Amino acid sequence: MALVSIIGTGTMGQAIAGVVGRSGNTVELLGQSDAEKPVTGEVVVLAVPHGAVADIVAQRGEQLAGKVVVDITNPVDFETFDSLVVPADGSAAAEIAAALPRSRVVKAFNTTFAATLASGTVGAQPTTVLIAGDDADAKALLAGIVTAAGLRALDAGSLRRARELEALGFLQITLAAGEKLPWTGGFAAIA
Amino acid sequence: MALVSIIGTGTMGQAIAGVVGRSGNTVELLGQSDAEKPVTGEVVVLAVPHGAVADIVAQRGEQLAGKVVVDITNPVDFETFDSLVVPADGSAAAEIAAALPRSRVVKAFNTTFAATLASGTVGAQPTTVLIAGDDADAKALLAGIVTAAGLRALDAGSLRRARELEALGFLQITLAAGEKLPWTGGFAAIA
Repeated sequence: MALVSIIGTGTMGQAIAGVVGRSGNTVELLGQSDAEKPVTGEVVVLAVPHGAVADIVAQRGEQLAGKVVVDITNPVDFETFDSLVVPADGSAAAEIAAALPRSRVVKAFNTTFAATLASGTVGAQPTTVLIAGDDADAKALLAGIVTAAGLRALDAGSLRRARELEALGFLQITLAAGEKLPWTGGFAAIA
Repeated sequence: MALVSIIGTGTMGQAIAGVVGRSGNTVELLGQSDAEKPVTGEVVVLAVPHGAVADIVAQRGEQLAGKVVVDITNPVDFETFDSLVVPADGSAAAEIAAALPRSRVVKAFNTTFAATLASGTVGAQPTTVLIAGDDADAKALLAGIVTAAGLRALDAGSLRRARELEALGFLQITLAAGEKLPWTGGFAAIA
């Protein structure tokens, strides 16, 4: 039984809270009015836009020490919609990991649209959460929560693979924004 | 009716030749012993490993002028299996386009394993060929061939999106090499 804190009450925060709830684990959902409230979960999901992560890391860095921190962001440049705002050879996850050296940072949920977390399916396929990170136990903990909720989890490798996950997330968003794929669909991992 | 030349007779070259054949268009398959034979197709698929492209471009650059050139490569660093060998902010497709300024370069087939081109399916889903490029007519020509063969085609945007397609191809290869996804599966685009 794990306590999962989710910072951010938007579409993704709510969808991930639903996944955790279905998994039988406990959710703590923290919104903007909870800035003074400490996070208590052993897993903390940063369910905020990429631009809001730096402030949270600055404010809550001490609290996040020792915890599994889940980065779900897609750092898309929404002005140009033609690139990411992180360095080409890096990733948002790598930046967060560098800022939180005492946390175990994993990348997850950035390639699963909110609707597919809620429905549990991408088309007729089960929704698969791709998880990248350098700490095997942290990945296994999150994978256990995801699979207990009836979704699939797939270990995508080390945190360096966050770069490819963010590229995949970006591609998927551009295709959905261009109405070439639906927000209820996207890329399904076919095992 | 288009004539499609495929340079490279390996697994991918043969699989793409099968797609063209099923589409009702004509295939010209060129192997290593055909180095002196000029390419005649209006569409030319470079179905060779990334490391072999530079020589072909150097030898056949003049012949490729005016043609639609299809880059299918995944420029994976197979020594480390941890990055691509192209610059992080670029792509193999961008390098080929720069080397062939009089050709219309498109990126395609790098996210579809050979088995999924032959079977026409990724699991129970139709195989979708993601196509990126800056020339709408070139993309439409290739998409027409792909769909006539019973596959799906999806316009993934400008040639800049080749970077994301190569990230997706790399991710998919690492997952298959790690036996986390089968070579008959991978990522299916769910419309």
